[in-house]
Amino acid sequence: MSPKVKSLDRKELVVKSLEEIGRRICGQIENGEFPWIEMKSRSTSNIFYSPELRQYALGEKTIKRSARVVSHLRPFTQMVWTAYFVRELIRQRKTSTLRDVYYSAQAYDIAFDDQSESDNIITDLETVIGYPREDFNVFPEERSAVFGDLTIRYTVPGYENRRLNLTSHPDGMMIGPALTNAKFVKTTADKVIVIEKGAMFTRFIEEQVYKKFNAILIYTSGQAPRSTRYFIRRLNNELGLPVYIFTDADPWGMHIAMVIISGSANAAHLRELTTPDAEWAGVWASDIVNYKLPSEKLSPLDIKRLSELSKDPRYKGGIWQREIANFMKIKKKCELEAFSRYGLTHIVDKYLPERLSELGA
Amino acid sequence: MSPKVKSLDRKELVVKSLEEIGRRICGQIENGEFPWIEMKSRSTSNIFYSPELRQYALGEKTIKRSARVVSHLRPFTQMVWTAYFVRELIRQRKTSTLRDVYYSAQAYDIAFDDQSESDNIITDLETVIGYPREDFNVFPEERSAVFGDLTIRYTVPGYENRRLNLTSHPDGMMIGPALTNAKFVKTTADKVIVIEKGAMFTRFIEEQVYKKFNAILIYTSGQAPRSTRYFIRRLNNELGLPVYIFTDADPWGMHIAMVIISGSANAAHLRELTTPDAEWAGVWASDIVNYKLPSEKLSPLDIKRLSELSKDPRYKGGIWQREIANFMKIKKKCELEAFSRYGLTHIVDKYLPERLSELGA
Repeated sequence: MSPKVKSLDRKELVVKSLEEIGRRICGQIENGEFPWIEMKSRSTSNIFYSPELRQYALGEKTIKRSARVVSHLRPFTQMVWTAYFVRELIRQRKTSTLRDVYYSAQAYDIAFDDQSESDNIITDLETVIGYPREDFNVFPEERSAVFGDLTIRYTVPGYENRRLNLTSHPDGMMIGPALTNAKFVKTTADKVIVIEKGAMFTRFIEEQVYKKFNAILIYTSGQAPRSTRYFIRRLNNELGLPVYIFTDADPWGMHIAMVIISGSANAAHLRELTTPDAEWAGVWASDIVNYKLPSEKLSPLDIKRLSELSKDPRYKGGIWQREIANFMKIKKKCELEAFSRYGLTHIVDKYLPERLSELGA
Repeated sequence: MSPKVKSLDRKELVVKSLEEIGRRICGQIENGEFPWIEMKSRSTSNIFYSPELRQYALGEKTIKRSARVVSHLRPFTQMVWTAYFVRELIRQRKTSTLRDVYYSAQAYDIAFDDQSESDNIITDLETVIGYPREDFNVFPEERSAVFGDLTIRYTVPGYENRRLNLTSHPDGMMIGPALTNAKFVKTTADKVIVIEKGAMFTRFIEEQVYKKFNAILIYTSGQAPRSTRYFIRRLNNELGLPVYIFTDADPWGMHIAMVIISGSANAAHLRELTTPDAEWAGVWASDIVNYKLPSEKLSPLDIKRLSELSKDPRYKGGIWQREIANFMKIKKKCELEAFSRYGLTHIVDKYLPERLSELGA
C-alpha cells in the first residue's frame, strides 16, 4: 500500500498562502495604495448547496476590506495580526485553540471585544487561504478517538518519524494535533466504521470488530469535532477506505452522520471537512421495526427537527427522505444500545454483518 | 519501584461478594425463610460528612428488602438479577454501561420502568458489596485521557501481559476499561498533574511538562468521569504520587477539583472514588489578581453557587474558604487559557513552576 501522503506539503502551502497575504499588503503600501484584502462573502445570500460538490459552497459575491474605510480598519488589522500569529504557530510548531487565539491577541494589544469576534476573523482567514484552521494549528477543544490496524508516522516535535500502530491501546487513541498531522504508513483495514457512542466503541473493540470486519473504528463522542471529520476524510481520501457511520436512530443521530458526510453551512468556504462518499449505516427508523428494538416516542422537538431536515437540501433523495418518512410514520426513536435487548453482542454478531452486506461492504 | 498491585485480587473479591449474595439467598430459601437482603440506607438523613475519611459516608441506619413484603419483591428481584448479570460480565470479561444494563434486562424479562430505576439498583449493589460498579465492569460512557512516563501491563482479553508506555501517543491515551484494569509496572514520574481542559492538556504535552516536571498528565474533560477519579486514586495510592489539580478559576472549576478530592454525596457508600490528599493547585481567585489575568465578571449563578459551596462541609477550612472569600471580594472569574495573554507558554514557564514550588512539590 502506498498512500498519497499529503500533510507536510499542505503545511508548506498554508505558510506560502499566509506569507502571500503579507507580501500583497506590503506591495500595496509600497505602491502608495491603502492596503486591502478581498475574499468571498459568507453572507447567507451567498451560501448555496452544490449538488456537484455534495456540500454547501459559496457563490461568486466577494467583499473587500480596505484600510481606506474607517469601519474596515478594525477587522483588517485583526486579520493581519491573526495571519501573523498562526504563521508563528506553524513556525514554532505549537498548536492552539480558538480561545487561546482570543487571549493571545491581548499580548499584542490587538482588541477583540469577545471570542466570537476573534472566531469570526479566523473564519475569514480560512476563507482567504482556503484551508481549515487545523492546517494553521488552531484545533478544537473536544477530543474523539480511533482504534484499528493503521500504522502512522508522527511529524510533531519530539516524535518525528516514530511509528505507532493504532491498535496499541485497547481503550482508543485520542485524535488531537499529533494524529491529525501524522502520515499514514500502512493498514490492513478495508473500511472505516464511525460510532457516535463511547460505550459502543468499547464494545466494538472488545468484540474485535477491527479484526473480524477489517475496520478502523472511530469514536465521535456525539457531533464529530472538526479534526475528527478531517481525519475521517483523510482515511477515505488517502487510503481509499469506504466509511460507514452508526448513530442513534433519531434526527440528532442522522444529523451527526450528515455533518460528517456533507458538512455544515458554516463551513461552506472549505472543502476539507466532508466525506461525501461516507454512508449513514444506521440505526435507521426502519431498523426499529425490522429488528424489533426497544424504542421511545419521538418528542415534539424531535418531530420539529425532522420536518426541518426534510427541507434541507443535504437531505434530498435516497435513504434520507425514506428514513425521515419512516420516523414520521412510526413516531419512534431508539439508541444504539437498544440492541442489548437481545444480548450484549447481538449488535456485532447480527446487525453489523447484515447491514454491511446490505450496503455492499 | 514495586507498586502494590491490586486489581486482579479486587476482581476476585468482587466475584466472591456477588456469589456470597447468591449463597445467602439460597440458604435462606432452604431454611424455609422468605429471602432478604440488608444494606446501609442511602437516604439523605443517613449521609454525613466524615472528617476522618474526608468524604461523605453512610451512617448506621440499615434497610432490609424481603420477599415477604409485596412492595419489596420488585427491587429484590431486580437486584438478584443485576448481581447475576454483572457476575456474567466479569466471567465473560465483557464491559458494559448503565444504559446497556437497562436494555439487557429486557432480554431476561426483568422489568425496569426506566433507566433511573436500573441505575438505582446498581447503586444498591455497590452499597451491598462495597465496590464501585467499575469493579463489576459497568463503566461510564464518557472518556478522558492520560499521558506520561508510566508503563502499564494490560489484563484485558487479547492484550494479556502486553506492556505499553503512556507516552506512546502524544495526543493522549483514553482512560477506558483496559487502562482501569491495567497493572502499573514502572514510572519515573514523581507527581500527577490533572487538567480540566483539552487545550491545556495538549499544551502541557507540547511543552514537555511530563519531562520537565516528571509528571503524569490527566485530562478530565470537565467534571472527571468516575473511572478517571478511580484511576487518579490508583496513581496516588499504588504509586504514592502526589496529585495537583488545575481548573478554571470559578466555582465550577473548584468543584471539579473537590469531587476528585472528596467525592460526592451520591457516592457516600463507596471509598474508591476519592483522593483526599490531592490538592487544588489553581487557578485560584487570588491568581487572577496576582498574575493580572484577563477575567470576566461572576454571573449571579456563579455567586449563588459560591454561597452554596461556602456552606458545604467539604469546603471547610484552608484554601477553600480563603478562595471562596477571594472570589466574593473580586467578583471575577477566569479560565486556564487566560495565561495566554502573556504568551502561549507562560502558564508552563512561569505559573506552573511557581505554583508547584509554593505547594512544596
